[in-house]
Amino acid sequence: MLNRSIGDVGQMQTPAAFKDAMRRIASSVMLVTGRDVDGLPHGMAASAVIPVSMDPPSMLVAINRTAGLHPVVQRTRRFCVNLLGDDQQHLLAPFSQSALRAERFRSDDWRDAWSDDLEQLPWLAGAPAAVDCAVESALDYGTHTLFIGRVLNVHCEESTQLSASPLVWLAGRRAALSLSS
Amino acid sequence: MLNRSIGDVGQMQTPAAFKDAMRRIASSVMLVTGRDVDGLPHGMAASAVIPVSMDPPSMLVAINRTAGLHPVVQRTRRFCVNLLGDDQQHLLAPFSQSALRAERFRSDDWRDAWSDDLEQLPWLAGAPAAVDCAVESALDYGTHTLFIGRVLNVHCEESTQLSASPLVWLAGRRAALSLSS
Repeated sequence: MLNRSIGDVGQMQTPAAFKDAMRRIASSVMLVTGRDVDGLPHGMAASAVIPVSMDPPSMLVAINRTAGLHPVVQRTRRFCVNLLGDDQQHLLAPFSQSALRAERFRSDDWRDAWSDDLEQLPWLAGAPAAVDCAVESALDYGTHTLFIGRVLNVHCEESTQLSASPLVWLAGRRAALSLSS
Repeated sequence: MLNRSIGDVGQMQTPAAFKDAMRRIASSVMLVTGRDVDGLPHGMAASAVIPVSMDPPSMLVAINRTAGLHPVVQRTRRFCVNLLGDDQQHLLAPFSQSALRAERFRSDDWRDAWSDDLEQLPWLAGAPAAVDCAVESALDYGTHTLFIGRVLNVHCEESTQLSASPLVWLAGRRAALSLSS
């Protein structure tokens, strides 16, 4: 047996083994956005985002309580999930590096980033999909809050116009995808 | 603008647009397993599985309340997340086609599938990772229950022994992954 288990003597303890295990999951990269009560846009990069139910259409995002986006979503009960395309990797860095924070919503690809309408969240044109949600349920667990949002609106690039597959992350790096026949 | 929005006249309504959007997310394929109180193994294929928190190490799975695995996890408060490798695609069909149900735990790759120990859940040898969890919190939403499990044990193939990247699904099909430099 080549498997290790935390029960085995001399092996990794659970937290390290778990972290290692989670790096083996390939996931699509999303930018989750919100707007605070002063009208300013906020966002973070996330991969812990899943559809919950088709009836009603709903999504779940796990947000660390130390993240700047957390109090915004907590208070406004709104978030928008922007699925990044493989050709949109340049939009990721401002959301994952705090030194680039000022660049977050500078790209022309963002729509409604600086809207006066508090109900209108920033969404990414040209993204494979942008899904606007209203929080209906929230649950704190460990360091995170799980926000479950009912889908209000879907911005979805026409399939014929899709230029790229989604941006996928694996083991801390970009992974290229190709559809098999 | 090439984007469509459900607000636009003549466009898709939210449920169809949402379903289309979710097909654009690339996700790793997992087999989630459990054991009922009679000792029988159960399982289902899933992609709505995410890590929640590193402290404590924890994972979330969304399970449809009509799934056979649902009452098992509800009652026993245990589940095991098995991340499938790209070379383990043959193990998926029995869990996604009910006609092949009898084949589910026949493969020699399964460990402890038929154990007398109710505490020991089926886990997949050779998988990139198998993560054994105890449910600490659950939340019903729409058609699904979200089960949050604290990690009890991690079976994790040594990196040097990993023969393949994870099995990734996109738009209802297998997608091949390659790590970029």
